Amino acid sequence: MLRTHNCGELKIKDVGLNVTLCGWLHRLRNLGGMTFIDIRDRYGITQLAFDEKTNKTLCDFAQTLGREYVLQVKGVVKERSSKNPKMPTGDIEIEVNEIKILNKSKIPPFTIEDNTDGGDELRMHYRYLDLRRNIIKLNLSLRHRLSILIRNYMNDNGFMEIETPFLVKSTPEGARDFVVPSRMNVGQFYALPQSPQTFKQLLMVAGFDKYFQLVRCFRDEDLRADRQPEFTQLDCEMSFVEQEDVLQMFEGLIKYLFDKEKGLQFNKFPRLTWEEAMRLYGSDKPDIRFGMKFVEINDEVKGNGFSIFDNAELVVGICAKGCANYTRKQLDELTDFVKRPQVGATGLVYIKCGEDGIKSSIDKFYSVEKLEQIAHKFNAEKGDLILILAGEKGKTRASLSCLRLELGTRLGLRNPNTFAPLWVIDFPLLEWDEETHRFYAMHHPFTAPKPEDYEKLFTHPAEVRANAYDLVVNGVELGGGSIRIHDRKMQNDMFKALGFSEEEAQNQFGFLLDAFEYGAPPHGGIAFGFDRICSVFSGVESIRDFIAFPKNNNGRDVMLDAPSNISLQQLDELNIKLK
Amino acid sequence: MLRTHNCGELKIKDVGLNVTLCGWLHRLRNLGGMTFIDIRDRYGITQLAFDEKTNKTLCDFAQTLGREYVLQVKGVVKERSSKNPKMPTGDIEIEVNEIKILNKSKIPPFTIEDNTDGGDELRMHYRYLDLRRNIIKLNLSLRHRLSILIRNYMNDNGFMEIETPFLVKSTPEGARDFVVPSRMNVGQFYALPQSPQTFKQLLMVAGFDKYFQLVRCFRDEDLRADRQPEFTQLDCEMSFVEQEDVLQMFEGLIKYLFDKEKGLQFNKFPRLTWEEAMRLYGSDKPDIRFGMKFVEINDEVKGNGFSIFDNAELVVGICAKGCANYTRKQLDELTDFVKRPQVGATGLVYIKCGEDGIKSSIDKFYSVEKLEQIAHKFNAEKGDLILILAGEKGKTRASLSCLRLELGTRLGLRNPNTFAPLWVIDFPLLEWDEETHRFYAMHHPFTAPKPEDYEKLFTHPAEVRANAYDLVVNGVELGGGSIRIHDRKMQNDMFKALGFSEEEAQNQFGFLLDAFEYGAPPHGGIAFGFDRICSVFSGVESIRDFIAFPKNNNGRDVMLDAPSNISLQQLDELNIKLK
Repeated sequence: MLRTHNCGELKIKDVGLNVTLCGWLHRLRNLGGMTFIDIRDRYGITQLAFDEKTNKTLCDFAQTLGREYVLQVKGVVKERSSKNPKMPTGDIEIEVNEIKILNKSKIPPFTIEDNTDGGDELRMHYRYLDLRRNIIKLNLSLRHRLSILIRNYMNDNGFMEIETPFLVKSTPEGARDFVVPSRMNVGQFYALPQSPQTFKQLLMVAGFDKYFQLVRCFRDEDLRADRQPEFTQLDCEMSFVEQEDVLQMFEGLIKYLFDKEKGLQFNKFPRLTWEEAMRLYGSDKPDIRFGMKFVEINDEVKGNGFSIFDNAELVVGICAKGCANYTRKQLDELTDFVKRPQVGATGLVYIKCGEDGIKSSIDKFYSVEKLEQIAHKFNAEKGDLILILAGEKGKTRASLSCLRLELGTRLGLRNPNTFAPLWVIDFPLLEWDEETHRFYAMHHPFTAPKPEDYEKLFTHPAEVRANAYDLVVNGVELGGGSIRIHDRKMQNDMFKALGFSEEEAQNQFGFLLDAFEYGAPPHGGIAFGFDRICSVFSGVESIRDFIAFPKNNNGRDVMLDAPSNISLQQLDELNIKLK
Repeated sequence: MLRTHNCGELKIKDVGLNVTLCGWLHRLRNLGGMTFIDIRDRYGITQLAFDEKTNKTLCDFAQTLGREYVLQVKGVVKERSSKNPKMPTGDIEIEVNEIKILNKSKIPPFTIEDNTDGGDELRMHYRYLDLRRNIIKLNLSLRHRLSILIRNYMNDNGFMEIETPFLVKSTPEGARDFVVPSRMNVGQFYALPQSPQTFKQLLMVAGFDKYFQLVRCFRDEDLRADRQPEFTQLDCEMSFVEQEDVLQMFEGLIKYLFDKEKGLQFNKFPRLTWEEAMRLYGSDKPDIRFGMKFVEINDEVKGNGFSIFDNAELVVGICAKGCANYTRKQLDELTDFVKRPQVGATGLVYIKCGEDGIKSSIDKFYSVEKLEQIAHKFNAEKGDLILILAGEKGKTRASLSCLRLELGTRLGLRNPNTFAPLWVIDFPLLEWDEETHRFYAMHHPFTAPKPEDYEKLFTHPAEVRANAYDLVVNGVELGGGSIRIHDRKMQNDMFKALGFSEEEAQNQFGFLLDAFEYGAPPHGGIAFGFDRICSVFSGVESIRDFIAFPKNNNGRDVMLDAPSNISLQQLDELNIKLK
């Protein structure tokens, strides 16, 4: 080793030791007679001291060193005269007697600090410098620790990690595949897996009983702010289980992670059916760190001549505690907020339960008594503000969900260090797509209908519920899964409900359908977004900084400059050409 | 859970317990009044008993069940009258009082036994059935355990697992890339990584100090028997290290794995320089479970009028202990063996040190005294057989290496349960390619020359040695690595020696060259073939059965039927067409 110690470990007990440290020049201060250098590595920062009086040559040399130079220094550990209690090594410094420059550095294009002056594109271009910042190092350390904890829990509970292939078969169902032209099989393509779903089911057919994998997945979708074309999933499957077994096992995992990583304990996670979640929060991933539940008031408001309410499928509101004093301007802001295209409402009705009586934007249509009756339904007290939206049920709930989260944020009810996990269960099996005029699987086509709803698949497909569940923390879906179909006939029925012909089903998923005929056990599982687990544990919205080398919103790695052109020879060998 | 216990855990202490088991019908025996079923799951096999006398209906029903049916049975644990000490559950059986068929099975196309009657293609087509065989289950269990052990060792030694991207940039150097057309970046392609080499070096530049990853890698090469287009690598890198540090750390890992998995301890692994390995074994991955070292006899044999020896660059042989009694037929077999195109020799000379004196195929040219002198150089004793090849140095060594391994096998010197690890060090930096008339990097272009050889890069490139090392066990290269270049100028020089123009180097590896200008630390590392580690630990040659879903020699997954055609719409979206 080029060092005897790292830059984070020397303490007062080491005073007098001859040491050799290696690291990066983090900061240099020239205080007249004394020069100080902070030397940094992954483990910490140690102060180097150079005294002009005792070694002018070395001190002068030290002053010529630049930021981010890589140094090897030899010296003696000394007790500091002015200690820094904020630094783990703050009691000591190194009286240096030898410096070697291991490598020079150009001046970095941005500062290596938590609050850097570098913009996003610049930091991504020099990602290897960005990764030197402590904040990103902590993120990747958390990711490493969580991966170790996850594997320990899974291993302790009898799960085997089994690697599944990355060069698989393209299936048009679901998101768009990345494909890989095959050189040896002319004109044919592999696909990169969107998830190992079919493989883990085959592993259950093969009798592996309990499987998991921390595995990369790929989706060629237009990227939103917080999506990556490649992402990591904790993928799990169990045989001979019912929904309750899966929920218990993975509630256990999440509790274990919170306990080991954050020292937090939880009671049994609350459970909401999908229907309840939609009715009470307008979302299948409700943030339940705060209440502000939806109150539906169709019965109270209809028939009073206010046509917007009279014509609405749903009139629904929330009660914002202590907000009755909101000004005209604040209310206009909220109205503008709900009218944004992403939120999609056409207007906002308010009822202020002020100290000086009840006031509303719909005074014309509703008497004070009526308004008080409505306020009562919201359990509103003096000082509260009721906000109401109306319209088509699905859209109105979605809009009100946005407003609820916005108010939660404004009122400081969404503390990133508070964690509120819950299960959302009993998802619908199918959802109707207006554009393509067909049903799609809400989770995926391998999810089993609830046995008691199976017959409805042929008569009222929209009403069929599934033994499907999501784990939600702070309004973020961390994972989702289901009990799977293990019966060929049921799987055929499901594909039929999704509009597949028998040929299409056999062509795309024949290997799985065939496998169901050779003794497939009942099974179910779950998959978690691992990048997402990391970001939620850090109380951060974006997953980008929990990924060492992420892509930008155009799917580009700006550091590598990838994707890029390839040679004609490569195209020729692959038997493809550009259009 | 659909079961109270698994099929491997019930013992004599459980007699009297009411249990529910789930599993596959492994075997059914109808012994007149009694019917027995072996029910199997991942954890073992338990015997189910049905007595015609006590429950004829159930017994009759049991007899209708087919192989590989998935069953749920309820019953009582009983002590067996005739125990089976070979089975962990052999003391007990279940007196069944209820059976439920969870799923039926067609008759499997081959038997689910270690020695199955299924051929390779058939087993691969029904891989989910093949995976039910105990032997493959044990392989994948070993793989799981080794992955857990590896991660524990790496974590305990301060390494962080950091995931690197799979959608990267294509670089023509090295093997052929798999590429992925980008939809969002018209006409451009990602590549799948052949290894995370450049990323791990960037992580060192970023200061992560100790990195590892168990990671999939991809190479689009024509597949030999034991190559897969996707394979898994244990990839590692360390900063501020010298070669000795890397060797110590990873010798520690391999010892840890042998200790924990097999209870085997080792002394310090032997080390051979590449030059010694080639001279003594004709291979850079010698199997040192047995001796039979090469003996060079140019000095002894030249100038005696035997033109084949006189004209040869190298005359070299091995001594096969106790083989002097080989018959004409056996010697002909060995001659045929060395003449095979894969071995490539033109003939084989022998010297028999028989009880009745020395005999040779070159008696005409060499006196008995001369032959005895040669035999002496081999330390041959009465009863030994000396086998000699002659010709161009490199080819002759390679041929003799094949012969040595063949003899080792014939003489039973290559016990798969004996493990002989060693390091091969001091590899040449470059190797000359006759076909393309240029130098290639022997490991890869990022390997550093030995400091004392650096200047020869400009004058005698073929003589430059590298701080590069391979870990070899039983003649298999488990891993290899090197101390890397961390200096931009040296990397430029290296690319120049490989025939890159400055533009080409900058275009392909600019991000790494740039990174070297911002404080790159000295660093080095190693990568192991994880599939290979698993197969060597099992004493098996092929890696195929340590991979859950392998590809065949045409790169096809015959179960999925991948690769496959994709739709015109997919091609259109990707802006490519078939040729």
